[in-house]
Amino acid sequence: MSRLEIFGIDGLPEVQEGDDIAQLIIDATLAHKAPLADGDVVVVTQKVVSKAEGQVVAVDPSDPLSHKPLVERESVRVLRRRGDLVISETRHGFVCANAGIDLSNVARGFAALLPVDSDRSARRIRDALRGRAGVLVGVIVSDTFGRTWRRGVTDVAIGCAGIRPIVDLRGSTDSHGRELQVTEVAVVDEIAAAAELVMGKADSVPVAVVRGVDGAWLSDGSVQSDIVRHPEEDLFR
Amino acid sequence: MSRLEIFGIDGLPEVQEGDDIAQLIIDATLAHKAPLADGDVVVVTQKVVSKAEGQVVAVDPSDPLSHKPLVERESVRVLRRRGDLVISETRHGFVCANAGIDLSNVARGFAALLPVDSDRSARRIRDALRGRAGVLVGVIVSDTFGRTWRRGVTDVAIGCAGIRPIVDLRGSTDSHGRELQVTEVAVVDEIAAAAELVMGKADSVPVAVVRGVDGAWLSDGSVQSDIVRHPEEDLFR
Repeated sequence: MSRLEIFGIDGLPEVQEGDDIAQLIIDATLAHKAPLADGDVVVVTQKVVSKAEGQVVAVDPSDPLSHKPLVERESVRVLRRRGDLVISETRHGFVCANAGIDLSNVARGFAALLPVDSDRSARRIRDALRGRAGVLVGVIVSDTFGRTWRRGVTDVAIGCAGIRPIVDLRGSTDSHGRELQVTEVAVVDEIAAAAELVMGKADSVPVAVVRGVDGAWLSDGSVQSDIVRHPEEDLFR
Repeated sequence: MSRLEIFGIDGLPEVQEGDDIAQLIIDATLAHKAPLADGDVVVVTQKVVSKAEGQVVAVDPSDPLSHKPLVERESVRVLRRRGDLVISETRHGFVCANAGIDLSNVARGFAALLPVDSDRSARRIRDALRGRAGVLVGVIVSDTFGRTWRRGVTDVAIGCAGIRPIVDLRGSTDSHGRELQVTEVAVVDEIAAAAELVMGKADSVPVAVVRGVDGAWLSDGSVQSDIVRHPEEDLFR
C-alpha cells in the first residue's frame, strides 16, 4: 500500500528581503520536531520566495487597482481582459491572472511580483538545505492559478529543483498489457496542489513537506523547460 | 502543524459491470488493515466507476482510432482539433481531450466513456459506505485532464459527494488583516491531484484514501454545479 504524508510548516517569521528561506525552513521544521529527511519534497509558496528576493514593489495603498500598471509591465502578451481581470502571459511563459501579481499577504502599500526565475529560486533553497541540513530533497515553488474551464483556483509549481516536473509513463504497459497513451503526469503540479491542502490561505503556512514520493522522481528538472507549453504546441493562446 | 495522509488502495479485483464499488473498497481497505474512518475522503478513478456502471463500449480492436466516432458523439461542442486530438466540451460541461474517452486499462476492443453523472456516482458510493461500513466520508470521482498552457496531465474531480468542491476564503482576512481577494480554492481538484500521486497509471491502484482534511469541508456539493464554469463567464470557449 503506497502512502504519502504532507505536513504544513507554520511558525516561520514574517519574511523580509534578504532572508534565508532554507534556514527558516530548517528552524521551523526543527521547532516542530519534524526534521527534513532525504527524499522529502519541500513546497514553498511564491509569496515568501518573492519577499526574500525583494520582488516586492510599492503601490498606492488607497487605490485597489494600483498594481494594474505592474500587470501590464510584467506581461509579454495579454490573452483576455474582462473588467479588471487580465489573463496574460508573463515573461516566464506562465499564463495566469494579473501576471501572478497580488496584494494579499503582503504589507499594505506593496505588491508581490513573481520571482525572476523560480527554478533558480528552488535550486538555491535545495542547495542550501543540502549544505546546511545535509538532506537531499526536492524543492517546489508554488503559486495559485485559475483554470480556463473550471471554477476555483489550485496551486501549481512555478519552479522546481531536484524533482522531475513530468513523469513520463508513456510506453509503460497498462494492466491489460497494452501500451499506455498520453500519461505524462505533471507530478510537480500535483504535489503543489497537495501541499496547498495543508496551507490555508490566511494561516501563515508558507511551507509544506511531502514525504513518500517515488524516489525515481527525485532527479533534475525545470518547470520553465518541462511544464511551460511552447507557443507552437498551444491551441488556445 | 497540519498533517494529511494519503493511502493508495490496491488489491481490488478487475471491475465488471454491476460490481459494487463501495463493497470492493471496504474489502480492500480491510485487507490492508486500513479501515475507513469518519472524515476520510475516498478518491475513486473514473475508469472503475465507468466499468461498474457499464459505460464501456465495444470498438474495433485493430483500429487505434476506433473510439473517435464516440468522441464526436459524446461532445456537444468541439473547441479545437489538431491531428487526431480533439479538445471538446462534453455533455457534462467538461472541456477535455477526446471527451474523456480512452482505451487504457480497459479490455482490448473496448473504450470507457465518462459516467453519465459522476456526482451521482459519488453519492451512491458515499451512501453505500455509510450504510455498510458506518463511516461518514467524502467521495471524489477523479479523471486525468490536460491543461491549456501547461504540459503534462493532472487528475481532477469530475464528481463528488459529501465534500464541498470549492472552499471560499474570500472575506477571510490575510495575515496582514486585509481582506483576501480571489481565493476560492478548488479543494476537490487538489485532493484528486494529491490522490493521483499514490495511484500510478499502470499499477492498478484505482482508489486512494485522503485522511486529515479540514472537517468543515465535508458538507454537500457537486462538481457539476460548483466547478464546471458556465459558458457566460468563460473567456476561452
